Amino acid sequence: MAFTEIAYDVADRVATVTLCRPERLNAFTHTMRVELIEAFDQADADDGVRAVVVTGAGRAFCAGADLGGGGGTFGHRERGDGAESVEGAPRDGGGTVALRIARSLKPVIGAINGPAVGVGVTMTLPMDVRLAAESARFGFVFARRGIVTEAASSWFLPRIVGIAQAMEWAATGRVFPAAEALTGRLVSRVLPDAELLPAAYALAAEIAGNTSAVSVAAIRRLMWSGLSASSPWEAHAADSRLMAELGGGADSVEGVTAFLEKRRADFPMKVSEDLPPGVPSWPDNPYGV
Amino acid sequence: MAFTEIAYDVADRVATVTLCRPERLNAFTHTMRVELIEAFDQADADDGVRAVVVTGAGRAFCAGADLGGGGGTFGHRERGDGAESVEGAPRDGGGTVALRIARSLKPVIGAINGPAVGVGVTMTLPMDVRLAAESARFGFVFARRGIVTEAASSWFLPRIVGIAQAMEWAATGRVFPAAEALTGRLVSRVLPDAELLPAAYALAAEIAGNTSAVSVAAIRRLMWSGLSASSPWEAHAADSRLMAELGGGADSVEGVTAFLEKRRADFPMKVSEDLPPGVPSWPDNPYGV
Amino acid sequence: MAFTEIAYDVADRVATVTLCRPERLNAFTHTMRVELIEAFDQADADDGVRAVVVTGAGRAFCAGADLGGGGGTFGHRERGDGAESVEGAPRDGGGTVALRIARSLKPVIGAINGPAVGVGVTMTLPMDVRLAAESARFGFVFARRGIVTEAASSWFLPRIVGIAQAMEWAATGRVFPAAEALTGRLVSRVLPDAELLPAAYALAAEIAGNTSAVSVAAIRRLMWSGLSASSPWEAHAADSRLMAELGGGADSVEGVTAFLEKRRADFPMKVSEDLPPGVPSWPDNPYGV
Repeated sequence: MAFTEIAYDVADRVATVTLCRPERLNAFTHTMRVELIEAFDQADADDGVRAVVVTGAGRAFCAGADLGGGGGTFGHRERGDGAESVEGAPRDGGGTVALRIARSLKPVIGAINGPAVGVGVTMTLPMDVRLAAESARFGFVFARRGIVTEAASSWFLPRIVGIAQAMEWAATGRVFPAAEALTGRLVSRVLPDAELLPAAYALAAEIAGNTSAVSVAAIRRLMWSGLSASSPWEAHAADSRLMAELGGGADSVEGVTAFLEKRRADFPMKVSEDLPPGVPSWPDNPYGV
Repeated sequence: MAFTEIAYDVADRVATVTLCRPERLNAFTHTMRVELIEAFDQADADDGVRAVVVTGAGRAFCAGADLGGGGGTFGHRERGDGAESVEGAPRDGGGTVALRIARSLKPVIGAINGPAVGVGVTMTLPMDVRLAAESARFGFVFARRGIVTEAASSWFLPRIVGIAQAMEWAATGRVFPAAEALTGRLVSRVLPDAELLPAAYALAAEIAGNTSAVSVAAIRRLMWSGLSASSPWEAHAADSRLMAELGGGADSVEGVTAFLEKRRADFPMKVSEDLPPGVPSWPDNPYGV
Repeated sequence: MAFTEIAYDVADRVATVTLCRPERLNAFTHTMRVELIEAFDQADADDGVRAVVVTGAGRAFCAGADLGGGGGTFGHRERGDGAESVEGAPRDGGGTVALRIARSLKPVIGAINGPAVGVGVTMTLPMDVRLAAESARFGFVFARRGIVTEAASSWFLPRIVGIAQAMEWAATGRVFPAAEALTGRLVSRVLPDAELLPAAYALAAEIAGNTSAVSVAAIRRLMWSGLSASSPWEAHAADSRLMAELGGGADSVEGVTAFLEKRRADFPMKVSEDLPPGVPSWPDNPYGV
């Protein structure tokens, strides 16, 4: 698949996904949606990829849905968009991307280099870590456009920043600077613009250089599904199964041995082949996402 | 309904609910409970109301349950209180108010002007934003009175401040100042006393002046029910339905058009008439609240 | 039961559980697991215990699983460990401790005096409050050993520090200092080493000196199960029942009366005898833990 609205590059065991419509501030389209999902499929299938960094080309991260269609932009049902449907409604497009990112087997780092508004910010919520450049700004502007917070952000956002902060941002639709995003815990760090990508790659390298890829994939699924688990006993059942499956495996033997020998581990297992059956899939997914 | 223990006023598209028993530090009674529920019913039914501010008359916000009944104050079952019951027990009164606020279609801003203790603080937990005056203080004092945290605060509080902070406050029953409430993330901001209400009204005006009332109502229900949703796929189904229902609607057309024309939007839709069927009701409510 | 790898002492209505293998940095073993569970059983059964403080002997809190078994340390299934099993897998040992602490009827304060790594940190997640000495450090190092985050930490950790912080620590496996634990909200306070235990005991004394033991036990179960409750209506049902059961009880009469008389309350009820039937047990526990 040749990408036209994103770029996908792999270097140093890190895949970089770049939203790439700089003349439109990387505004989100149906094509971009399809390409983003494909990019995460490729990253998951490639054992040479240990982490994914998502950023934007030019001065924006993503300005939100492309409003080139004018006032009718969000009239998907009226236009008959969407062969895929949920209970008769076209599937929310931002949500298909967000749910794909949530299911990623590789950790995902958002490197938010400029404005991230509407779906431009909600698509970052299922990423593991969000880093912001000083010139980034954010807006959950949906109520100013007569629509609702989408991309499953009603699930993600209150779990990330708390319900009070989520409601303040969503009810006002305010556009706010990186400093407010940091105080409100939407992003983990704010960096000078030139230091944003180096910081994202340093974090990716810390993961790639020290850990078992299979462990990280299993942990990512455990943690995110743990947010949905109904009790710690459910988590305990998953832990017990995964500790049994991985505890005697080659990565565990190498990890413990390397630690005892005070050397860096060289983990042999591969996500493409060695992911144990106990790795949770997300529950309650009636849509085949 | 004429209110006797609260005041209810609407101005500039904001309803102000004032707890109004200043000679008793606005202590909570059965009458106040009934009047608060009625006030939120009125605010929801009135398209002239875009947000609700809750505050206290005099120097307190609310000193908790009125202990004028002495040692037997909480002996509701012994007195045969409560025609309404949950599995044979009288319904917890603070909880009936908290659950009504949780279901509000208008955003709710707590302007905590003084002591907020017991039900005086737990009733604020389902509000969207809590602002505190410097002279506010807080206490989850239930364990010092031989009862339990009520008003569904075991659900709300750990989701707002985290389980560690929730347990520290609830297990000690400590009364603490506004600064500790801010550090612990119980309140969003602490303001000099004279600036509290202006800040609350500025936030309400930011909502009223920029957003679709229908969007905000739908988002409020999405976000709060999102805290209960079992997975992001459940949120995705709700999003897809609401985006289909609202995306081609009059508020969306106006919101996008106004944005493109760089003017303030004038949203035509009304909460009383135009709320789409996809707006979530809260699940698991067997009591008809 | 005579303890060999922990110490258990009761003084001033506080039980201190000390991990006690200082020559091995208090590394976790099967024996330590069994003894920890027994210690919490004793604390729950003893009305003379109002709170539990957990700390480590010597310079470490707990260095994690004892790796004396070398590369095969985590090969529990291969060794046939674990008569108890979950769906055919040996139960994760750290999880048995974590779930026991989660069910404690007494509040639990972690006094983390030094390194807390692997199960050494995950065992602290179901404690109510974590205090750290300046010399403490932390590591969710599982991905560096080829295994997964255990002890139900996929349930606890994202609810305590948020999913972004949880994933950053778990995906990197990084060992980090107390200051990072504080910023990331893993611990409530960082104290000079010599002030750690005094601070823990001061907090325990604040609980013991002011509150009803039965209230605190009921609240602890309400709050932790509230994190699992599917909606605030479920919490409201539990509240209503407990307010009915405790509201007319001896501790409530004493608590309100003492408050009105401006004296310290002397609560007569006992956890061992007077815990009302409405106190929640944790749901979804198919393993009899």
